[in-house]
Amino acid sequence: MPKFAVGVDFGTLSARALVAEIGTGRELGAATMDYPHAVMTRALPNGTPLKPDWALQHPRDYLDCLGFVVPEALRRSGVDPADVVGMGIDCTASTSLPVDADGTPLCFHHRFSSVPHAWPMLWKHHAAQPYATRMQQAAESRGESFLARYGGKVSSEWLMPKLWQILDEAPEVYAAADRFIEAGDWIVYKLTGVERRSAAIAGYKAFWHKEDGYPSEEFFAALDPRLARVVDEKLSRALYPAGTRAGGLDAFGAKLTGLPVGTPVAVANIDAHVSLPPAGVVEPGRLLMILGTSTCHIVLGAEERAVPGICGVVEDGVVPGLYGYEAGQSCCGDHFKWLIENFVPGSDAAEAAARGIGLHELLTERASALRPGESGLIALDWWNGNRSVLVDMDLTGLMVGMTLATRPEEVYRALIEATAYGTRAIVENFASHGVRVDSLCACGGIAKKNPLMMQIYADVLGREIHIARSAQTPALGSAMYGAVAAGGAGGGYDTIAEASRAMGGVEDSAYAPDAEASRVYDALYAEYIRLHDLFGRGGCDVMKRLKRIRERAIR
Amino acid sequence: MPKFAVGVDFGTLSARALVAEIGTGRELGAATMDYPHAVMTRALPNGTPLKPDWALQHPRDYLDCLGFVVPEALRRSGVDPADVVGMGIDCTASTSLPVDADGTPLCFHHRFSSVPHAWPMLWKHHAAQPYATRMQQAAESRGESFLARYGGKVSSEWLMPKLWQILDEAPEVYAAADRFIEAGDWIVYKLTGVERRSAAIAGYKAFWHKEDGYPSEEFFAALDPRLARVVDEKLSRALYPAGTRAGGLDAFGAKLTGLPVGTPVAVANIDAHVSLPPAGVVEPGRLLMILGTSTCHIVLGAEERAVPGICGVVEDGVVPGLYGYEAGQSCCGDHFKWLIENFVPGSDAAEAAARGIGLHELLTERASALRPGESGLIALDWWNGNRSVLVDMDLTGLMVGMTLATRPEEVYRALIEATAYGTRAIVENFASHGVRVDSLCACGGIAKKNPLMMQIYADVLGREIHIARSAQTPALGSAMYGAVAAGGAGGGYDTIAEASRAMGGVEDSAYAPDAEASRVYDALYAEYIRLHDLFGRGGCDVMKRLKRIRERAIR
Repeated sequence: MPKFAVGVDFGTLSARALVAEIGTGRELGAATMDYPHAVMTRALPNGTPLKPDWALQHPRDYLDCLGFVVPEALRRSGVDPADVVGMGIDCTASTSLPVDADGTPLCFHHRFSSVPHAWPMLWKHHAAQPYATRMQQAAESRGESFLARYGGKVSSEWLMPKLWQILDEAPEVYAAADRFIEAGDWIVYKLTGVERRSAAIAGYKAFWHKEDGYPSEEFFAALDPRLARVVDEKLSRALYPAGTRAGGLDAFGAKLTGLPVGTPVAVANIDAHVSLPPAGVVEPGRLLMILGTSTCHIVLGAEERAVPGICGVVEDGVVPGLYGYEAGQSCCGDHFKWLIENFVPGSDAAEAAARGIGLHELLTERASALRPGESGLIALDWWNGNRSVLVDMDLTGLMVGMTLATRPEEVYRALIEATAYGTRAIVENFASHGVRVDSLCACGGIAKKNPLMMQIYADVLGREIHIARSAQTPALGSAMYGAVAAGGAGGGYDTIAEASRAMGGVEDSAYAPDAEASRVYDALYAEYIRLHDLFGRGGCDVMKRLKRIRERAIR
Repeated sequence: MPKFAVGVDFGTLSARALVAEIGTGRELGAATMDYPHAVMTRALPNGTPLKPDWALQHPRDYLDCLGFVVPEALRRSGVDPADVVGMGIDCTASTSLPVDADGTPLCFHHRFSSVPHAWPMLWKHHAAQPYATRMQQAAESRGESFLARYGGKVSSEWLMPKLWQILDEAPEVYAAADRFIEAGDWIVYKLTGVERRSAAIAGYKAFWHKEDGYPSEEFFAALDPRLARVVDEKLSRALYPAGTRAGGLDAFGAKLTGLPVGTPVAVANIDAHVSLPPAGVVEPGRLLMILGTSTCHIVLGAEERAVPGICGVVEDGVVPGLYGYEAGQSCCGDHFKWLIENFVPGSDAAEAAARGIGLHELLTERASALRPGESGLIALDWWNGNRSVLVDMDLTGLMVGMTLATRPEEVYRALIEATAYGTRAIVENFASHGVRVDSLCACGGIAKKNPLMMQIYADVLGREIHIARSAQTPALGSAMYGAVAAGGAGGGYDTIAEASRAMGGVEDSAYAPDAEASRVYDALYAEYIRLHDLFGRGGCDVMKRLKRIRERAIR
């Protein structure tokens, strides 16, 4: 009798549920729903205006979507809910919210509904940047050892700067909060009635370490005396590794999802990270690229190494028993979207329309006809800053080599190549700091749909690129963690590695590097690295000065 | 009784005649005609194919156009041809052709009609580049003093490399040529029956110097023994300054133009250079920018100085008694044309069409709304190499500062700003090598039609920019030299300075720099110079390496 698991992926703009078969990973049904309030950057639902760089969400959206996508995916799959052995969820992080003693979001209380700080702060809420900057300076000057695990940097996208911002700017919200909780943990809590927080999220987004725990009270006190006991007063030291059973669906959770009461639910996980098991990446030395508007690179290691310029390394962070290293490119597909939307002439749009294809297809077709090096162009892929390995959001785009003959498809290809060079820089940075990268796998929409780009990646990296079989790796990954929460005895698996071997995998054919193309790209990559180091490591700080000139100009 | 002068401007693609009033410069009639054969880059008229980088013209086109534009301009002006005191012509240079003893172009002989080397080689015939390179190396290694007057470089656009190419590749053409002559000198010869060659053209394009004459026989012999006596065998040492009367129209010239036999004709001049008198620029320290697809900068000086990176300095070259210094930017308006034609989206084209305006106007309107520094962009204006002050055609374009919010109008403005920075670099290079630049004037279509660009130039240079009153300065300038050929006694002028004061001048209002904008542009110019020196002076030779990679890729 076949059994199934359900995974739900809470992204930035929508939630997606997937019903997958235990043993095969076969995807039987899926459903997606956009968050009704999307990302609130200008005003709260009642019209209260927000300042620049704010990015909030509505907690009810998570539950409303959950209540649609799971029953709908089940319906489409034709699966009997009684045959679902477990479910898992993943969510963007750090996306956190203050709740009262009952776990009710403070923003649901009339008293706080007009206070922006009482609403969930999305990962890309960047208004906490001043706090992140001061936190990093404090950690550096105190020689805090945790900093090395995060590439030496504190990001405004993480939890602690956001909590400090709330304390400093809205102390009444901070005081009224019984605790702060990650949105993923909160969703699991709403499903099960049990609060079992994710060690993975805390590890990557809140400086938590399996042996060392959180940073010390002295560190937090040095930031602000009122923050000294933030962990014990507002968070929790009880954290659970990925795949742990958080609890079973309670009556509310069962009603919401249409699954039976008691169905095992796994602790929450980070959206990008759950893609590894579906791609079959559960062993040291294998690197997964999750390609989308931006790129996330995760590689597993058997030991903890200090690697500069990465986003974080967390023991058990992705697969229990291994160290999960994360790095990233803050802009990937967004480069091509930028070009397509702003810099492709009407004549090309007309040709694409006449042929019934999109502009991406048209430019891809033309760019495919170009040989490596033929455009004479090279770019630095920093249109949205550089996450790894420079960790500098003040860096901007650069392109060199334009002539009067330069065409959009050449720029298009140069931008693809630039993202490939950026990935190679990340892979080489891992390798040169003792983190082996033996094989490469890609997932995400771009990986499935853009053979030109994947071939360029193979040629630039000089390696085979495998492609994950599933087109919806996050939701499938969450389903697999749900199967692990059920356990082998419960019809699932005892380990995520087992689940991965049974339900995950890559496409039969991989992209193999072309020797001649790789030779040309080696020469171009050497130029990329020269420019990368020149503009990114202090040799020529023109990008930062242009930003400062710009800030003064628009003030 | 009012008197008149006629000027004819032979450009790259067309000829234009203008009838102007003596004493006022009032423009009474003009006519233009495109050369029937335009620029031949692929084949001769009989289908003989041409190799890459060739650019030839048809000598008959010059006469056919002359026979239309002068009579037509006279007709439109309503002027009695008997009231025309003199005429002058200007032409692109070095555009040269081999002729027989009668002055008939060799290409008119059946024997040579299929030999490309027998046809006029246009200034932008770049196929002589290998000869230019070897000529420069030879001049350097021999320590030839003439080289310093040309910024230390030999251009393939000049006469001597072209002659060497003909000798080397088609010795039968070289041998059959009674002499080689500049197209401008040939046209004057056809009009008057008298061969009086222009000292200005020889000075800027053939290494001739008022005191030193041509380079030595030893120098030419070092290139190729057969070239030793090239000057005496194939050119002429008799050269005449601008404004000299070459002769009077003979019967053929009179019939062609519709002017009376004997009408004084001035010796030929270079198209860009004749714009100075109409702009009122006939004194030391005044710089004229002739703005078009590329930019030519000419400043007059009282002394000869060695200025690196300029195109040439020639005594009497523009105004008798003064040294004419020429520098240039190999790409100006072509940058904006490139963007408009290749990188502006259909939505903008639709908006422009709906409003009945052009894309240049739309982008100019939007770019005008931006403050200096607001785009965060900076570019190096090298889409077509760098003529001054780096003299390096292997340099290419660079742009830095792009983000996902960057729009076409921001790139458009950044390209305008880049050309302004390039002009400032040229002006500062003159000043730092002892050539005073006290005032700035601009002419050409862009100067008359693009207030945004002229304001940016004023702000970037921190100086007033005056605009020449005439919209057709080359033809007006040639008319003024024609008036000087007539002389004061003949109803014209004795000097070009007198003619300029009477017939030339600038618009009443000038573009004045805005102090706040200039302050911002000073900071941006400092960044431009950093990038300029880094990429242009050997610090980072990525552009050259990309070109080499490209050459291998397309081979």
